[in-house]
Amino acid sequence: MRLTALHSLRHSLLATMVLTALLAGCQTTPDALRGTGDLGVIVERATGSLALVDTSHQRQLARIEGLGDLSHASVKFSRDARYAFVFGRDGGLSKVDLLTGDVTARVMQSGNSIGGAISQNGQLVAVANYEPGGVKLFDSANLELVADIPATWQDENGHEQRAKVVGLVDAPGNRFVYSLFEAGEIHVVDMNGETPELMRFTQIGKNPYDALIDPSGRYYIAGLFGEDGLALLDLWHPDAGVQRILPNYGRGEERLPVYKMPHLEGWAIAGNEAWLPAVGRHEVLIADKDDWSLLDRLPVHGQPIFVMSRPDQRQVWVSFAHPDNDVVQVIDTETREIVATLSPGKAVLHMEFTPRGEQVWISARDSNRVTVYDTRTLNEVARLESESPSGIFFTDRAHRIGL
Amino acid sequence: MRLTALHSLRHSLLATMVLTALLAGCQTTPDALRGTGDLGVIVERATGSLALVDTSHQRQLARIEGLGDLSHASVKFSRDARYAFVFGRDGGLSKVDLLTGDVTARVMQSGNSIGGAISQNGQLVAVANYEPGGVKLFDSANLELVADIPATWQDENGHEQRAKVVGLVDAPGNRFVYSLFEAGEIHVVDMNGETPELMRFTQIGKNPYDALIDPSGRYYIAGLFGEDGLALLDLWHPDAGVQRILPNYGRGEERLPVYKMPHLEGWAIAGNEAWLPAVGRHEVLIADKDDWSLLDRLPVHGQPIFVMSRPDQRQVWVSFAHPDNDVVQVIDTETREIVATLSPGKAVLHMEFTPRGEQVWISARDSNRVTVYDTRTLNEVARLESESPSGIFFTDRAHRIGL
Repeated sequence: MRLTALHSLRHSLLATMVLTALLAGCQTTPDALRGTGDLGVIVERATGSLALVDTSHQRQLARIEGLGDLSHASVKFSRDARYAFVFGRDGGLSKVDLLTGDVTARVMQSGNSIGGAISQNGQLVAVANYEPGGVKLFDSANLELVADIPATWQDENGHEQRAKVVGLVDAPGNRFVYSLFEAGEIHVVDMNGETPELMRFTQIGKNPYDALIDPSGRYYIAGLFGEDGLALLDLWHPDAGVQRILPNYGRGEERLPVYKMPHLEGWAIAGNEAWLPAVGRHEVLIADKDDWSLLDRLPVHGQPIFVMSRPDQRQVWVSFAHPDNDVVQVIDTETREIVATLSPGKAVLHMEFTPRGEQVWISARDSNRVTVYDTRTLNEVARLESESPSGIFFTDRAHRIGL
Repeated sequence: MRLTALHSLRHSLLATMVLTALLAGCQTTPDALRGTGDLGVIVERATGSLALVDTSHQRQLARIEGLGDLSHASVKFSRDARYAFVFGRDGGLSKVDLLTGDVTARVMQSGNSIGGAISQNGQLVAVANYEPGGVKLFDSANLELVADIPATWQDENGHEQRAKVVGLVDAPGNRFVYSLFEAGEIHVVDMNGETPELMRFTQIGKNPYDALIDPSGRYYIAGLFGEDGLALLDLWHPDAGVQRILPNYGRGEERLPVYKMPHLEGWAIAGNEAWLPAVGRHEVLIADKDDWSLLDRLPVHGQPIFVMSRPDQRQVWVSFAHPDNDVVQVIDTETREIVATLSPGKAVLHMEFTPRGEQVWISARDSNRVTVYDTRTLNEVARLESESPSGIFFTDRAHRIGL
């Protein structure tokens, strides 16, 4: 709120240029000078707005509007943690200045998009598009188009087709990795040369629907909607090709009713273990990170959607699909026991830990609120009103590989 | 430079309050509005100053002076990444505003100090003191003293003594962990209650001289000056006490000539391996992170000081003690081969990776320069003049456990 007020003030000041306005402008300016390390945004899907928040004081600072359709929107941050790049479902890409609240650039870059990524050096913003299927790359400074890479593939009759792009992530070495839904392919784009250099992996499995990259940026893992198992690409050894892991991971022979396919981004890494949401089952799975064998299945409250590790890896927090989505469970990674079942509100959509993990913010869309918990005591420490909140993103993501 | 100029301008503006000054003030203000995610500081030990740098453009923005004796100084950042806390060797603790260049608070808090830490929630700054031996805790907002914890211990005659404090780190749960040099003890302070709660581990080994905490904040490892081996405390299981690991780690029976004890902070974690500097030998050691057995010894150019992992863990960069300290070597963590031997200048003192690892900054004290390398091509991308540069610290440390 305050930043928005400041911002309009700055504009009226430039317009009128009277002494009183100048005084007011100079007096308020120091308030806008602030570090950006404790900022974050909450996507308000119903109103197409972002709530700008401060994680040091658990408060909302401003609301930023005019960002189009933000259902299923995601956000990345600039290298200096000043700007948020907002990927709207309607193909809109917006650059938002967190210090002024301005939308400094905005392009309608496709008809339908599903998220994006920012290059390791911060200079490129990539967007994954459904329609027309492909990846567009923009200069992060001004959102000018740098490259347009259609997601083409050859169907069984040898005809060239375009596919929806999903699971787009950044990888070390200024590369981007993504999957082609209809094609069953994974593509890697190297942006170090004059033109994009594309590497294709075909027949990786039927209908990849989402993907993740591990925190070191080595392993890219795509989930498959059309069959069981997951597709793994080791980016240190692209020549070895894509291998299949966790062959029983999926809906299985029984074709379980799945209320929502789990997000892969949320996989937790705890020591040598990967904790992941089972598909369609009320279980969290634990796999060995070295050979991807299944180590354990933990019964939980519902079909898990996000399975996220507290930054110190001692806890895993789990959210669930409808109709069990009014609950979040906390699991101790050592004992593998559920230590708490919390009720942050109706339709829990996302969770975001503060950078060093002392708190977690949880959005409950149908309760119009975000609840902040102390992760040590598991007590509620703050509650923010928000319009249909969904994704929550903090600026420390600017400094993490694949986030 | 620009920030310093701006800052004096803002002050004269407040003093004179004339229209022209006001106009100038308002026009220049937007330049000072900036994200703080790509800022960093370089400690200039000879002049007791900090060079404020921007890692997006590899340039110096300002010089901040008046910080006392900065030989062997270290730096931590506030939770919002706006302020640097500078721990001087002379016991001075300064809070520096990276946006204005102001020293906003400064206390001479002891006669001789050796670094500090910031609590998980960002509210407390802790300083490790040699003289008088102990830890002081300050409110990070204004540097007011919150607690003074003398490092007391009972000697063999039952007399209470004070010890020098070394290896102070933050740990999850608003705790601090540190070692007592003369006592051979590790202490853990829990700052969650009304008063500090102290847990003591005695007889952990002779003369701990430095320590590290792993990136998850679980394992605290102290190096021993007085005997071989290292002391390990598992903070998930403090009741299990301190155990000894790597029993041959140290100077050994032959009492090797050691030019400088290696820094423990610099240990690299790559997958399940810990890469560490051998003491007194021209070797980098590789240990198994699960059982701390020694897996390999790699011959290198000299006695290693820092052994640091690129954030994606594919490379380890190694700096060396005198007289081999004009060289840095790069090792491939998979093949364990030295892939490059670089010459960043004379008396290399520190290395700092950009948050996602695309570049590394290396200080060469006796060449009065900092060299920036592209970690993919290993080419030099920039060179900055600096007065006897030593430690380099980037603001993303604000978001990491133990940094």
